Amino acid sequence: MYTRQNNPDDTIVALATAQGIGALGIIRVSGKDAFIICNKIFKPIDLTKQASHTIHYGHIYDNETIVDEVMLSLFRAPRSFTTEDSVEISCHGSSYILQQIIKLLVKSGARMAGPGEFTLRAYIHGRIDLSQAEAVGDLIASQNQSQLSIAMNQMRGGLSDNLKVLREQLLNFVSLIELELDFGEEDVEFADRSQLKLKVKEIQDYIHPILDSFRYGNAIRNGIPVAIIGRPNAGKSSLLNKLLNDDRAIVSEIAGTTRDTIEEEMHIKGISFRFIDTAGIRTTEDVVERIGIDKALKKIEQAQIIIYIFDASILGMEGVKKDLDMIGEKNATGNILVLGNKKDLLDDAQLQKVEKGLAELGLNYAFCVGTREAWENDIERIRKTLFDIMQLDKMNTGETIISNARHYQALKEASEALETVWNTLDANYSSDILALEIKRALNALGEITGEITNDEILGNIFGKFCIGK
Amino acid sequence: MYTRQNNPDDTIVALATAQGIGALGIIRVSGKDAFIICNKIFKPIDLTKQASHTIHYGHIYDNETIVDEVMLSLFRAPRSFTTEDSVEISCHGSSYILQQIIKLLVKSGARMAGPGEFTLRAYIHGRIDLSQAEAVGDLIASQNQSQLSIAMNQMRGGLSDNLKVLREQLLNFVSLIELELDFGEEDVEFADRSQLKLKVKEIQDYIHPILDSFRYGNAIRNGIPVAIIGRPNAGKSSLLNKLLNDDRAIVSEIAGTTRDTIEEEMHIKGISFRFIDTAGIRTTEDVVERIGIDKALKKIEQAQIIIYIFDASILGMEGVKKDLDMIGEKNATGNILVLGNKKDLLDDAQLQKVEKGLAELGLNYAFCVGTREAWENDIERIRKTLFDIMQLDKMNTGETIISNARHYQALKEASEALETVWNTLDANYSSDILALEIKRALNALGEITGEITNDEILGNIFGKFCIGK
Repeated sequence: MYTRQNNPDDTIVALATAQGIGALGIIRVSGKDAFIICNKIFKPIDLTKQASHTIHYGHIYDNETIVDEVMLSLFRAPRSFTTEDSVEISCHGSSYILQQIIKLLVKSGARMAGPGEFTLRAYIHGRIDLSQAEAVGDLIASQNQSQLSIAMNQMRGGLSDNLKVLREQLLNFVSLIELELDFGEEDVEFADRSQLKLKVKEIQDYIHPILDSFRYGNAIRNGIPVAIIGRPNAGKSSLLNKLLNDDRAIVSEIAGTTRDTIEEEMHIKGISFRFIDTAGIRTTEDVVERIGIDKALKKIEQAQIIIYIFDASILGMEGVKKDLDMIGEKNATGNILVLGNKKDLLDDAQLQKVEKGLAELGLNYAFCVGTREAWENDIERIRKTLFDIMQLDKMNTGETIISNARHYQALKEASEALETVWNTLDANYSSDILALEIKRALNALGEITGEITNDEILGNIFGKFCIGK
Repeated sequence: MYTRQNNPDDTIVALATAQGIGALGIIRVSGKDAFIICNKIFKPIDLTKQASHTIHYGHIYDNETIVDEVMLSLFRAPRSFTTEDSVEISCHGSSYILQQIIKLLVKSGARMAGPGEFTLRAYIHGRIDLSQAEAVGDLIASQNQSQLSIAMNQMRGGLSDNLKVLREQLLNFVSLIELELDFGEEDVEFADRSQLKLKVKEIQDYIHPILDSFRYGNAIRNGIPVAIIGRPNAGKSSLLNKLLNDDRAIVSEIAGTTRDTIEEEMHIKGISFRFIDTAGIRTTEDVVERIGIDKALKKIEQAQIIIYIFDASILGMEGVKKDLDMIGEKNATGNILVLGNKKDLLDDAQLQKVEKGLAELGLNYAFCVGTREAWENDIERIRKTLFDIMQLDKMNTGETIISNARHYQALKEASEALETVWNTLDANYSSDILALEIKRALNALGEITGEITNDEILGNIFGKFCIGK
């Protein structure tokens, strides 16, 4: 068992700061013997007699040898991160010294902590729920303001508070149903069916915006992969360069220059779009280039948005349709932006023809680009379109946003269970099925906060944490 | 000026823990406004009203937005590392969060600290002397017990205390001489010349062991570079592998396999020997191999010990002498170990001939190796010989050991000045010269502790520190 492997009676120790050389390093000790264990290697103060939230200067000793000059911060239960007695040893940031002190602590009775074990303890002792524990990990991994805001809101109980309301409503619900079941065969209806339907709708109205927020939250957390696809010399690399405003990809007049896929990020309103520049799609005898093309097609499957670009001065609509069919086979999202490039090489009649052709494709997002004199306008339009395709503008960032796939799955299951409840009410099925489905919804919500959980879930969550957290 | 660039009236801020992701990161703030500046971005406690050495929980705010949940440790002047008011902010170890908080502190009136500026302040405010400040840097860089012990002893004032005694003795000395000078032409001798000579000898007897300790201290600090030189297939890579007991270098039967120089460390009694495996030395047409050979010859110049190895079953003494002459031109240390390899391929008569040849070379360290059945004995003998060559066994590790080249140079200058004093006393020169030379010795010693210093010295010392120390 995950929790048994990590015996909560042990006193655990780990390096809490990043690996490498720094001015300071912090070693964290937590558990019922934290003070006693640290006392064995620290002089000259008796730590067991000191107050919580105080700092003490002294030396760490290996028998008679001084290992380091340190400051010890004391946190008495329950006023610590884990709610256990905890000591933070601030020493000089040499890997060697940090190792030596950790070794001494282990020799004195502490155990090396597993990944995330400090946070696991905070969760086991009930100081935070599971979604808050996950937010701690997200907070540490956060790389921009949007990620930080979501994690901070979640850590401070934003999601937990919402879920508490949902669970309470469902519990009221199930208690009425169970009352009916208690009366067995008597066919009593304590819960008015039309009232229940209203309640289900109310809860679904509550869940759906949170479920919807995942599209936004996931985009913030993981970024949106965008594949740029097109035939050789259609202008893929030029487009990427202009989007990124640098010269990351080598642009060349020779067809088939871009052999490796290149990933670059661009941020639009806090969302990271990860552009994938790919080899041109065409038939080729060159083995290396063939590998590049296969990679490009593979990228189509992974992308959330496809930008298909073609040279409007060369390729006719027949060719475009052929390419789009091939892309459609590979990608099911339907999020596609078609760009007719090299607009400047067309005369008015030709341009009109191309634009008519694009319109006839029946796509939401297809237009011509390649205005040499005013590329910035093209780029601005493309950037705006990318945001539109993902419907990101519709998000209300003030609401609770979920960015964790586990939470999304659990909420989805809760919503599906409630959908079944709704249908069951319509079909006038027995109360047993109602109670069962409502409990399924309750369970799903309980998994998010960790009220209902198992070792596999805990192992998955905390195993990804760094040691020392 | 170094100290003026780093205005000591500013309140400074820097990341104190290593770069990278960790559970915790520490930001250090020091200076007269440390509490006021932190108060601007921290809620809900008024830090200016809290006692020293206490820890406070709260949040860092960017206007109304929470940036992180933090613990603040307060240190009031003079009870801090810098002796100034100091705050340590313990936050989640995300690079983004750390950056944001540092930005907020700078916006609130703090200045980014230069390298080593916290330690510089501890020195400027007189909490530690210069040799102790240097020891802080050494402590952080320490990678084994020997390095740690020397740095810890120095940081705790081991060297400073010794120097204080020396300086006091010299000051007594100079005051007597100056009394004589005050009496001008009267040719009075307050300081008995034979007494003075005894005193000089006493001080020199004190300085010399410390000077001597540098050979050991420097070996501990920087390791001892050992170049392994020999013709192709003499067994250089095999020897290195056996010494290191791993397969770092690719051993091959094909002559000229090792083209790149490879550095590996081996520890003998706390001293690191850095082995340099080199390309075989021979005439070659291969350009790449030629570059390797040139590198090998260059390594000879940098090495403190040369191991010259030859295949005793192939190469005669004439060839060995030729190689040794070439090595001698490149390396002046005279620290050479000659190994006749592949002993097992020789019959008794051949072996005797080789051993006689080696003896006739008149070197201190030359013997045959290559006992296939008992390589361990050969290796043990080589390891012991390396230690002997550097005369490291003669060191008394209980005494003060200096490992810093700056300290060595200053002590050497003090010793040279005293040597001149001694000679001056013999020659019965005027008291002026005596006083001058004694003051030179005093100056030199003062440079070590920083009583006498200049901005260039300070810049050199603290510029090498990491930011945040």
